Parts: sequence; structure tokens; C-alpha cells
Amino acid sequence: MTQNPKQIAILGCGTIGASWTALVTAFGHDARVWDPSPDFAGRLERQLERNHQSLGELGQLSAQPGRVTIAETAADAVAGAQFVQESAIEDLSAKQALYQSIAPAMAADAILASSTSFLMPSDLQADSAFAERICIGHPFNPPHLIPLVEVVGGKLTTSNTLDQAVAFYQSIGKRVVRLKKEATGHLVNRLQAALWREAVHAVTDGIADLADVDAAIAYGPGLRWALMGPHLTFHLAGGDGGMTHFIDHLGPVNETAWADLGSPQLDAATTKTLIEGCATATNGMSVDDLRQRRDAQLLALLKNTERVL
Amino acid sequence: MTQNPKQIAILGCGTIGASWTALVTAFGHDARVWDPSPDFAGRLERQLERNHQSLGELGQLSAQPGRVTIAETAADAVAGAQFVQESAIEDLSAKQALYQSIAPAMAADAILASSTSFLMPSDLQADSAFAERICIGHPFNPPHLIPLVEVVGGKLTTSNTLDQAVAFYQSIGKRVVRLKKEATGHLVNRLQAALWREAVHAVTDGIADLADVDAAIAYGPGLRWALMGPHLTFHLAGGDGGMTHFIDHLGPVNETAWADLGSPQLDAATTKTLIEGCATATNGMSVDDLRQRRDAQLLALLKNTERVL
Repeated sequence: MTQNPKQIAILGCGTIGASWTALVTAFGHDARVWDPSPDFAGRLERQLERNHQSLGELGQLSAQPGRVTIAETAADAVAGAQFVQESAIEDLSAKQALYQSIAPAMAADAILASSTSFLMPSDLQADSAFAERICIGHPFNPPHLIPLVEVVGGKLTTSNTLDQAVAFYQSIGKRVVRLKKEATGHLVNRLQAALWREAVHAVTDGIADLADVDAAIAYGPGLRWALMGPHLTFHLAGGDGGMTHFIDHLGPVNETAWADLGSPQLDAATTKTLIEGCATATNGMSVDDLRQRRDAQLLALLKNTERVL
Repeated sequence: MTQNPKQIAILGCGTIGASWTALVTAFGHDARVWDPSPDFAGRLERQLERNHQSLGELGQLSAQPGRVTIAETAADAVAGAQFVQESAIEDLSAKQALYQSIAPAMAADAILASSTSFLMPSDLQADSAFAERICIGHPFNPPHLIPLVEVVGGKLTTSNTLDQAVAFYQSIGKRVVRLKKEATGHLVNRLQAALWREAVHAVTDGIADLADVDAAIAYGPGLRWALMGPHLTFHLAGGDGGMTHFIDHLGPVNETAWADLGSPQLDAATTKTLIEGCATATNGMSVDDLRQRRDAQLLALLKNTERVL
């Protein structure tokens, strides 16, 4: 599928790392995988099979997938790799220590992209010998299915590093959004946090139960957001006058709503309410069952629809 | 399709009213339609044909659709109607005056549901002779396709009114979320406003361009929100530990993100940025073209996927 199969190092192979492994090998690249957990190889094998099947249904599985080999150490995994996808534990010190351990083994032109959800690229690269080749390549669960990858560099990242990361992700079928600057939660986790905050507030303020709040999204605006984002949805809601008409007519009420949005905290009472709300909403369904159903529907969604913009 | 065809009054027949007309007649109910605009009948006819075609593809078009008749006055439209769906201009005084004009013609057991996005039910019903039978039945554009209807009453609404509104909407294929209390923007416009606020902030703060912010949703979490809501998405992200594990591990970083979210206002500079951003993102595509593409994809989404919860 690819003209130039590369050697990719996968550091950290939980759900996210395994999904990256499936994706890069589906596109014909070889993966050298390291994880500190002693028993990850069996889980990886099962997840690879499942993820490759899904990618096959999307027409994204090469007739000759790349090989997966298990590395004994992180340094061993990156030796000879042109691209390193790091999905290790979400802890700044742990990631910095990991980067230090692989520095001697990194090829001079190899790039490391971190899957971190909330750590800042400038913090990750601060003390690294290859700081200029470190960036964020943040995927969305499940990474082999959700097209988006956010790419953003820190203070020391070169634009060449970002160019190469963008090009690599595009070559494996991802839709890349390259941020103009780093921010807490990058871009999309900020957007998710904003929606979730008001969703939590709606529950704790007693506007609706958790199951109803979630159904309201999935049977309502979530269907539109799967096709176009919030600005363009409102541009369309403005009719022929687009965003100009929308702001004229609904700008003021949206500003009123903004002023009224809640500011919940995840204190003990709120945490208890959310956990109980999820239990009620899922009605005994296990997370794994929920994941299987979600991924099956996600696959159907991706096979049968296109993003409008 | 329905065992008990009713007579439905449609007050206000712009895009939303026409979509309601298509939906109720598709389910076999007769619609008596009133709109103050002199030339709405032609537009209604074209929209009915288009919307019935879409509903047919979803298996929601009766072999014997209800009849549509145009009423000369609002009072004439509601005479004999069992259910009134009001989608008139979004203005409190105008709606109150409309309700006053139809009061003498309302059947003693008829219910009026308003499609209002932001007006409060208690304000709408304040001076009405049939206050106890007024509630909100807020749909999402396009109402014949998006399943969600929010139902909420004001201080004077009886629970019997709400029960009947819920039952009617369910009988015409809608997914109803019944709110426990009224709030500015009901439930879902609050959630939309929360997401949009941070999307606006991301643009004005220079994290990403408008087109990229929107693509990040449509190629990222929007795909998940079309299948389940924000709480259950995070419950799933918590793995086997669900929401408990999620809050343990990602609660604190989400709280940090909450504290860092922006508070933009729709001032002149921001408005200009958003309008220009929409123009760039749509690259000359008309709103009508965008709507057609969106609705076609929405139909494909609804035909080929199911909400997980």
C-alpha cells in the first residue's frame, strides 16, 4: 500500500499503542513494539487481528501488511526506526525518562510523536537531546478508526519535524489538524472538556438525568457534528445569510446561554452522581460490550457516510 | 401508519414548520398550516416533496400520508386541531400575541408545543388562557431527520400536557428527552453553546483556523457523539473501570482544562473573524448546497447506523 515502507517504533502498547500498531502495519510499515507490561504480546495479537479486520472493511489493509516484532527494551524498539509513536503512561516524568533512555538509539533524522492527551510538547521536550524532533501526534480512541490526528510542536520543535509528522500521518490515511500553537488539552480535548462540563452541569443541576443528557447528544446534535463542525453547523442554521444571519439573530441568545453555563467540579458528590448515572444508562452492559457495539457502528458510519467539510 | 390520525395545526411555516408538516403528514396525520408570509405555500410544497422522499428512504412515509391544507388565519388553523406545533418568529411578544389570537379557537383538550430554541416556557404561557396546555417541543434542524425532541413545561404546564406531548412525538418516530426543569436554552442548546464557545475561543485565541476547528470535530469526537453522548464516551474511555477509572485518571486534567477554557464575546472583531472563517471553510459553496450535502449524508448516517445508547 505504501511505496516506502518504514520501520516504526511503538513505545507503550496498551489500547492506543496496539491500535497504532495495527494502523501502521495495515499500511505496510514494519512495527517494532515495546511495552513495560510483561503480558502485552497476547493482548496485542488479539487486538491486531480485530483492528486489521476493521481496516480491511474500510479498504485500508494492505495485501502485504508490515511485520510486528516485540522489542526487549525501548531503545531496542527505536533502533533503526524512522518514526516513533509514543503512547506510554500519561506522566511527564515517566515520558521524559523514557525519552532519555532512547536518546542514544534514536537515528539522527528520526521523529518522535507523543499520543499524550494533556501533556504539553514544550514540557515533554524540555530536557531531551533530540528536542527539535519531538512533537505531539494525538489520536482519538479508537485510533485505527477515528481519522483525526492533532499535530502540534513545542518551543523547540522544528517545522521540518511537523511537516514530516503531518506527511506520515496523511500517508496512513489520517486527517491531520496542525495546530498553530500548543495549549492545555491541545485543541480537541478542550472542545470535549467544554461540552462535558456543561453535560456534567446539566446532570448535577437537575435539568436531566445522565442517560437523557447523553441521548440528547447522540439523537440530536451529535448526528450533525459527525458531518460538520459547530461553526459550519451554525453557518447552515443561518439559512441563505449563513453565519452573518446566525450571529444577527441567535448571537445574543447564545451569549446569554454562555453567561448561564455551569462550572461544576469533580468533587465526591459529583463523581458519585456520574458513576451512578453511567451504571443506570448502561444498565449492566460491560464496557467491553459497549466498545464492541460502538466500534461496529463507527465502522458502519465511516463506510457509509462522508464528512461534508 | 398511525391508528388514530389526528388533525395537527402548524403555526409558522418556515423551514422548521415545513419540516414538521412533512413529518406529521408522513405519519398519516392531517395538517392545517398557517404562516404570515404571503408566498409560503410554494416553498412548503417543494419542501414537503423533498422531505417526504427522505422520510420514505427511512421507512417513515405512510402509504396514505395526511392532507395538508392552508389556513387563512392562525385561529382557523387550530380550530379542530388536537395538537398545535408553533414555529413562529423567535420573539416573546409575537408568540404571546399569537397565542392570544388562537385562544378562542383552541379545543378544550388541545395542546400547544412551541419549537422555540431559547424562550422559556413559563414566559410563553404567562398570560395565556390555556397556559396549562402549553409546553416546549424543541426539534433539531432538520426536524424531519434528527430524531431528538426536547420536551419541557413551564410553571403552569400540567404533567398531563407533557405526557401527551411525549406520547405524540414518540408516535411520529421521535426520540423524546423530557427535561426535569426549564433552563435557558433548554438542555441541548446549552450543550451546543458550550461547545461553540470553546470553538470560537480556539479560533480567536489562534490555536487553529475555523476550518480546522470544525474538521477536528467532524473527523474526531463528532463521529463518536453520533453514537453515544459525552459521559458514556468517557465511561468507555475508562476501559474496564469505566467512569470511575476515567475520573481517577483524567478527572484532574479535565478540571485543569475547564479552568483554562475561553470566554469569548461576539464583538465586532470576533463576528468578522467567524464570518470570514466560514467563507474560507466553505470556499464559495452556497448554504443551500451545503444543506443538501449535509442532509444527504445525514440520511445515509441514519439509514446505516444505530445509536449505541
